[in-house]
Amino acid sequence: MGNLSAIQTNGHPLAAEPQLTVVGAGPGDLDLITLKGIKALRSADVVLYDALVNESMLTNYAAPGALCIFVGKRRRHKAFSQEDINELIVDYAKKRGHVVRLKGGDPFVFGRGLEELQYAQDHGVEVSYIPGVSSAIAAAGAAGIAVSLRGASRGFWVLTATTDTGALNPDILEAAQTSATVVILMGLAKLPEIAAAFAAAGKTTLPVAVIQNATLPQQQSVVGTVADIVQQVAANEIGSPAVIILGEVVRHQLSFETALTSIQSF
Amino acid sequence: MGNLSAIQTNGHPLAAEPQLTVVGAGPGDLDLITLKGIKALRSADVVLYDALVNESMLTNYAAPGALCIFVGKRRRHKAFSQEDINELIVDYAKKRGHVVRLKGGDPFVFGRGLEELQYAQDHGVEVSYIPGVSSAIAAAGAAGIAVSLRGASRGFWVLTATTDTGALNPDILEAAQTSATVVILMGLAKLPEIAAAFAAAGKTTLPVAVIQNATLPQQQSVVGTVADIVQQVAANEIGSPAVIILGEVVRHQLSFETALTSIQSF
Repeated sequence: MGNLSAIQTNGHPLAAEPQLTVVGAGPGDLDLITLKGIKALRSADVVLYDALVNESMLTNYAAPGALCIFVGKRRRHKAFSQEDINELIVDYAKKRGHVVRLKGGDPFVFGRGLEELQYAQDHGVEVSYIPGVSSAIAAAGAAGIAVSLRGASRGFWVLTATTDTGALNPDILEAAQTSATVVILMGLAKLPEIAAAFAAAGKTTLPVAVIQNATLPQQQSVVGTVADIVQQVAANEIGSPAVIILGEVVRHQLSFETALTSIQSF
Repeated sequence: MGNLSAIQTNGHPLAAEPQLTVVGAGPGDLDLITLKGIKALRSADVVLYDALVNESMLTNYAAPGALCIFVGKRRRHKAFSQEDINELIVDYAKKRGHVVRLKGGDPFVFGRGLEELQYAQDHGVEVSYIPGVSSAIAAAGAAGIAVSLRGASRGFWVLTATTDTGALNPDILEAAQTSATVVILMGLAKLPEIAAAFAAAGKTTLPVAVIQNATLPQQQSVVGTVADIVQQVAANEIGSPAVIILGEVVRHQLSFETALTSIQSF
């Protein structure tokens, strides 16, 4: 499907049915994409992928003839605006057939996946969604922490660190007051403000974990409290991308003898 | 690995290194397990699986000689207590080698995955964790709803419906007061109490979606408001297992032309 050179009508190529599949690539590990995601990649004519996607997925799973285009941010520099990406999706779907939009984690968790699907559908493209393993759950898990745990937490609240303008997400102040395990994505730059919000809620001794590059061979993590996590992160040279977990569940961290990535040897 | 019949010492079989891998099976669709999960199943000597697991995964992905044992609940009847399951894991790991504990969704989301890993590790079993696609995110997604969405929600709070004693999770009362999208798992029997909690918070017009059998061919969903969702669920004969989503994001639901499951044709 979608092989332009194979189908000709009156000398003009007949494009395959325009189609967009938004696919979750998972938290980073090459094998943590779903089988359905791999099947979509195999049938893609064009893949538009983001910065948090493991690029080996393209080499391993995309069809050899697929056009793979990076449309993410690098060093805070956006190659394409959201409007550009929306237009690229529709243009490529109409010209080439099946576009796969590959996003880190799950596309509907702060991923603008739904916005892209809606835009494409409004422009006559058939759309579908393939969920992915979200870092919101898997980053903690890869460090031996369960976001929910009998006796420690009956739920978890996942938040983005910033608003569109780059300010601290005000919902974090609200979350700090509750009994939820709090999971903050893309938030390392805001860690001092996040810790201050929890300290203001009287939670200076609450345990906090920060996990960088979760599920990848270079995964690193550090555990501290609201009072000292900023210092711990600096001392341990933890950088972005990182997931922040605040809650009693962090006390019940399990030590894996082998890293998650060792499972690739199966 | 773990092939008992192949390895003999002094007439006694030498078991492979005792090993437990807790694996997330995803929300239901056969292709929504990760590649890493499939690799673990292929190498399993024993698979202990739960009620929400798609049993075709065992036929398709487990090694032909693997022992597959159902240890979940059916019609509210537990075949095994948690203590039984913990002991089965350790016994089988020591006798047979690699035990895979296959759980619906992600094992660390209300799944007792960490408890089982901790118990096994305390008893000398090497442990690892393979995350899965959680229904907390994918059930909404399969119905065209993003749990987080620019302009509608900056986060989502995932809760279990009940405490250990079967009472309503008191955190739901707290969650009803916040700006979070609220996602409740295994909660259909508590829907009247959940709706009452949101009504008491002044949110009678808040949209609610209930999705049954998400990502499976028999997926069904209904959308209403806090005021009428109980009636809508009854009128549309929605049953368990179901995921409940309460939040403004439900207003931005996308209609897929084709069901998620149609993607299996890739």
